[in-house]
Amino acid sequence: MTRRNYIFAPGPVTVPPQVLAATAKPIIHHRSADFDPLFAKVCEGLKYVFQTKNPVVTFASSGTGAMEAAVVSTASPGERVVSLEAGKFGERWGDIAKAYGLAVERKQCEWGRSVDPQIVADELKQHPETKAIYMELCETSTATLENVKGVAEITRNTDTLLAVDAVSGLCAEELRMDEWGVDLVAAGSQKALMLTPGLGFVAVSEKARQAIAKSTAPKFYFSIGKALKELEKNTTPFTPAVSLLFGLEVALDMIREEGIENVWKRHARLAAAARSAVKAMNLELFSQNPASTCTAVKTPEGIDSGKVVKGLKEMGITIAGGQGQLKGKIFRFATLGWYNEYDVLTIIAAVEKVMQKLGHKFESGAGVSAAMAFFEANA
Amino acid sequence: MTRRNYIFAPGPVTVPPQVLAATAKPIIHHRSADFDPLFAKVCEGLKYVFQTKNPVVTFASSGTGAMEAAVVSTASPGERVVSLEAGKFGERWGDIAKAYGLAVERKQCEWGRSVDPQIVADELKQHPETKAIYMELCETSTATLENVKGVAEITRNTDTLLAVDAVSGLCAEELRMDEWGVDLVAAGSQKALMLTPGLGFVAVSEKARQAIAKSTAPKFYFSIGKALKELEKNTTPFTPAVSLLFGLEVALDMIREEGIENVWKRHARLAAAARSAVKAMNLELFSQNPASTCTAVKTPEGIDSGKVVKGLKEMGITIAGGQGQLKGKIFRFATLGWYNEYDVLTIIAAVEKVMQKLGHKFESGAGVSAAMAFFEANA
Repeated sequence: MTRRNYIFAPGPVTVPPQVLAATAKPIIHHRSADFDPLFAKVCEGLKYVFQTKNPVVTFASSGTGAMEAAVVSTASPGERVVSLEAGKFGERWGDIAKAYGLAVERKQCEWGRSVDPQIVADELKQHPETKAIYMELCETSTATLENVKGVAEITRNTDTLLAVDAVSGLCAEELRMDEWGVDLVAAGSQKALMLTPGLGFVAVSEKARQAIAKSTAPKFYFSIGKALKELEKNTTPFTPAVSLLFGLEVALDMIREEGIENVWKRHARLAAAARSAVKAMNLELFSQNPASTCTAVKTPEGIDSGKVVKGLKEMGITIAGGQGQLKGKIFRFATLGWYNEYDVLTIIAAVEKVMQKLGHKFESGAGVSAAMAFFEANA
Repeated sequence: MTRRNYIFAPGPVTVPPQVLAATAKPIIHHRSADFDPLFAKVCEGLKYVFQTKNPVVTFASSGTGAMEAAVVSTASPGERVVSLEAGKFGERWGDIAKAYGLAVERKQCEWGRSVDPQIVADELKQHPETKAIYMELCETSTATLENVKGVAEITRNTDTLLAVDAVSGLCAEELRMDEWGVDLVAAGSQKALMLTPGLGFVAVSEKARQAIAKSTAPKFYFSIGKALKELEKNTTPFTPAVSLLFGLEVALDMIREEGIENVWKRHARLAAAARSAVKAMNLELFSQNPASTCTAVKTPEGIDSGKVVKGLKEMGITIAGGQGQLKGKIFRFATLGWYNEYDVLTIIAAVEKVMQKLGHKFESGAGVSAAMAFFEANA
């Protein structure tokens, strides 16, 4: 038969056919009344997945664009900001801040561990003028869940903003923007939102909106201030990616039907089963505080993780390797978005095959059995 | 029957069903070998439509994002640039330049006329240090074709860059980037490229690439320098809008099959027929140098052009009104992209109906007859 391809990467993800079909609907004009109900509906749906009553602005961009918008819309050149960096995506915050002339303190933390919120407490004590803390929800390069709630407890009653990169984590990890007191949450469409890539989102708290009013960093396309102004009129400053919004409408309906807390729980359960399976294959997890977004596995000495990625690719299965200092040392897979128990069995079975081929020793079927046992015990 | 909707706006446009269908294909991972042939092919196809051997970079963004990329990637704060502004989209260049602290000379020119290249010659004589000239290919707000070739003759042997906003005009108007000596051409997907919105493009000359190496304007997402570096490896710095690239592949195949010169000719012929029809309805064109991209029609005294737009919308037909100083005074329609003779008859017949309803006097059928006569005389 024609080869069937599978994506188990931590984004992009398998897009449900009903979402794909919606993206192919005949185009409508975004400056006409046809656009109003669609945009109003997706904006409401986004608030639900961000767990916020605050506005969420949408850009035609990748998730990085959304992160840039969060930085340039709230800060001014020379202002002090702190970037918590325990992986490649944490570093992105620092890179953006540097590009715009902010006085960025880059806190290089150990990869594979959650950043200790005490670091933020100390920073704010010594430097209460700090404009913003930038952090991850899930550091995708190490598959580590960060402690957003813990950091928000420190920032929420200060003048310092908390900006969270939830590009990979949104909908996969618990995130309660308003309840926790997060100020800016950036996200992208091609992860647990189950969509094709091309949309970036930023949710914006009242405190962040006050910062936006004072920000002098240069910006045009990624001005959240401009986007918020147009949002009041239920539109966007520049042409939105309408076909992706059609898909988003369907994806958000699916999430609402399942319920966001159930979506979080499903991701947690699938990831926990995957971790049981990994251990049963005599493999070690990379992260000390593993995320539900994806799973990072160390390859045993002598096995380059690139070979695992390549071996799976030859079978039609896409996962991800290690980035930066982890290149060759870990592989990462995910059941992110529209995935279920059977998908976990699929990727684990495929990993078993490849690891055996590469000479790693374990009992055949051990991974899949462990995952099934986990599902049964945690029904 | 269920109402059939038509788009005759100067973008977004009717997207061919084969293009829509391609955008709904199962997603592939952009950091895997699956992406390579797709991206290589669309990059080659883009060179063809821009008529250039230079690289064309692609952003997940609207056309405005592409314009911003052209500005921030080549200029440095304080540098003198000249923005030729004879309409709303010309003004956008000036707005972007201002946002990034350039010393922008905004040449306010008469709306509805092409900007005289002599203005540029005088500017460069007085200020040879001018870093860039920003202009339109088609000023969409007035439906006016600008003289890119004429301006390029002045800039091409100087150190001054010529950046052209071809967001609406690409594929609709003759544009020979290399032959004419244009340095930066910005475009978007949702016009004569026949795609849904969400992709921005910038073609970059050798002279522009030299400027990029020296530019100090702050940038991250919209760095053309970064995009060019990744383009050498046949990829993009940030997650591309893959599903739109699937559609682009099909759209570019369609353009190549017709031939870019034939595509230009078809747009010119349809627009000329539309203008004959407009005159036959006793209506006046707004532009002194009308574009092929779209047609702007003055409404007779006492008829607010907003009523024409609204009347057509009630019939399921989307066109555009006047913007800025032209609000209420003109309406604009287009056969931009995947349109033919019958589409011209459709929009003209609909305009006839609405104008009669609004009390404008002319012989019923005069517009449609004039268009048919034009097509026969110009087969």
